[in-house]
Amino acid sequence: MREATLDSVAALIAQHGLSSITMSGIAEEAGIGRATLYKYFSDIDSVLVAWHAREMERSLEQLAAASKTADAADQRLEAVLEKYAMISFEHHRTELAALLHQGEHAVRASRELTDFLRDLLAEGALAGTLRDDVSPEELALFCVHSLAAAGVLTSKAAVRRLVRVTLSGLRPPG
Amino acid sequence: MREATLDSVAALIAQHGLSSITMSGIAEEAGIGRATLYKYFSDIDSVLVAWHAREMERSLEQLAAASKTADAADQRLEAVLEKYAMISFEHHRTELAALLHQGEHAVRASRELTDFLRDLLAEGALAGTLRDDVSPEELALFCVHSLAAAGVLTSKAAVRRLVRVTLSGLRPPG
Repeated sequence: MREATLDSVAALIAQHGLSSITMSGIAEEAGIGRATLYKYFSDIDSVLVAWHAREMERSLEQLAAASKTADAADQRLEAVLEKYAMISFEHHRTELAALLHQGEHAVRASRELTDFLRDLLAEGALAGTLRDDVSPEELALFCVHSLAAAGVLTSKAAVRRLVRVTLSGLRPPG
Repeated sequence: MREATLDSVAALIAQHGLSSITMSGIAEEAGIGRATLYKYFSDIDSVLVAWHAREMERSLEQLAAASKTADAADQRLEAVLEKYAMISFEHHRTELAALLHQGEHAVRASRELTDFLRDLLAEGALAGTLRDDVSPEELALFCVHSLAAAGVLTSKAAVRRLVRVTLSGLRPPG
């Protein structure tokens, strides 16, 4: 029920934009009664927050999957950074995202993301393929911010160049 | 009058936070009558937008000044990136900033900022100190996003490391 509701939110946003979303519209799209919908969610805001939390969770799962596509630490990092940049590219930055990102669930997900990257970066530093003059924690923040630029790029080729530039920033200096 | 009003906005936000700001409070802090204030600004939102626009304009002026502190293109770029990162660091990201950044004035100022960086980066690419396999336009977007990480860092030393990492990303590869 909850999943079906959140699926219909995504469909409604894609079709009509954010501002036209109503509880009735969601109930109709999900094929449930309004009363049932209100048992799960008290208002539009709580539906949107739940939807955004699910999106972020799915993104983290995609990153974890990307990190399993290669054995070498360096290739895993590259796969993860490219996946993250592509997610940013596909979910172009919107007013909605900016607002929802203020939420507690978003803070938690961001923390998970930087922890995940930090561990990959620490491995690379240990292996000598990445710089070790800056902490993996700070490098993870650098990656997350730099790759967010994908949200304003207009082609996948540009996103791949952004990943390349970001990776150069991570290499040992000199 | 306008300047005095905007100065008092900054003081009020610093003292009491954003949510407690009222038109009466601004008028009192600026030492003007409420009626006079309403001649210049129709509501709190318009005061905040004007204040934010002035902040962004001042930041651009600081960046222009930083670019004049050195002769060599490379040192100018470094001075500008460090100044930008320090500005991000000092204006830690707030809900207010996220909201105001949606405004048209902010889009215009961001455009000015990326144009300014783009020109510096193009110079560096021409001089051979910066990479030329990615357009200066895309590299400018990379810089703006990567340096925004300064907003979540906790020391100026960390901000300087961030600038170093960002600069590494800009160097010719290989």
